[in-house]
Amino acid sequence: MYPKDLLQQIAFIKEIDKIKYIERRTKLFNSDRRENDAEHSWHLALMALVLAQHANEPIDILKVIKMLLIHDLVEIDAGDTFLFDTTKNHDNTEEERTAAARIFGLLPEKQAEEFKAIWEEFEARQTAEAKFARSMDRLEPLLQNVSNKGGTWQEFNVGYSQVLQKQNVHEAISTTIDHYAKELIQQSVEAGILRKD
Amino acid sequence: MYPKDLLQQIAFIKEIDKIKYIERRTKLFNSDRRENDAEHSWHLALMALVLAQHANEPIDILKVIKMLLIHDLVEIDAGDTFLFDTTKNHDNTEEERTAAARIFGLLPEKQAEEFKAIWEEFEARQTAEAKFARSMDRLEPLLQNVSNKGGTWQEFNVGYSQVLQKQNVHEAISTTIDHYAKELIQQSVEAGILRKD
Repeated sequence: MYPKDLLQQIAFIKEIDKIKYIERRTKLFNSDRRENDAEHSWHLALMALVLAQHANEPIDILKVIKMLLIHDLVEIDAGDTFLFDTTKNHDNTEEERTAAARIFGLLPEKQAEEFKAIWEEFEARQTAEAKFARSMDRLEPLLQNVSNKGGTWQEFNVGYSQVLQKQNVHEAISTTIDHYAKELIQQSVEAGILRKD
Repeated sequence: MYPKDLLQQIAFIKEIDKIKYIERRTKLFNSDRRENDAEHSWHLALMALVLAQHANEPIDILKVIKMLLIHDLVEIDAGDTFLFDTTKNHDNTEEERTAAARIFGLLPEKQAEEFKAIWEEFEARQTAEAKFARSMDRLEPLLQNVSNKGGTWQEFNVGYSQVLQKQNVHEAISTTIDHYAKELIQQSVEAGILRKD
């Protein structure tokens, strides 16, 4: 009675609800409550929309938003990896690729291929869109940790060099955001909310 | 040191975090936990992306996604209005317009105007994009209530006619989604999870 596509799409829509239970380490702004992946993905998509003008080169904003809306769906199966967890591989792991195949595979074939390709493009970090999406993904927890007077930096004893290294992603796509992020990090050290190492 | 635009945009990005605390009545799929507006907005944006092919006429999907990402921001000031609350005005109220002016007004002027215009277009429900966005906004709680064996229909004693009336939005933009929604409602009555009135 309905197109087969619709029923596959509805199955996908139900499945991705589970991302609302995937908790990140980082907490909401000025808050003690941890953020979940759905909230995080919503925030990044809107940040990208608002900040797009600061990209150093032209970006396809629809593609950036698609990336950000879906970038953490693999965590439904693979779980969240904390940015500063040095015991875990942060790249496109076997576990994440299997998750991508299962979750995007719920969609009609052509759409599944499109979504997998967008997720892989995000993970590969080579295109301007992937770089801008990555910049948003790092900027949000930086802003949150500053608002929480150290936040997960304090909680997990993360120091200046580690933060600087994780925040080196902005330079490749936005001079403006890069300068702003570096300034925030310096100010955090001066304010005593980020340990100088 | 930074463009003035950037600092206004960062202020907006911090402010909109508050939407993560705005709780809806409807609960997550197969769940007892209520959904918040950030989770809801994320889900609708991704639903629109996945279901766009079922629109009866061409739609600008980027605009639909923009609408859905921002459509509930006014609730930071105005609060959530339950779909079946007959004591409250559901249209673009004075309170919501004041909220839109304050929240979008945090952005640089040109961007503030763009966002306000998109929100007003969504509220006016006249364009294909606004109709499709509205369809997503109604489809999600329908799917959730079915998955929760009645959900808020049971909790707030909502009957068949009321549900049918609220779900009459799909017809204007997607015959496929409209048929699917009506079928779900019929099945819900037959399964005894929606009161026949």
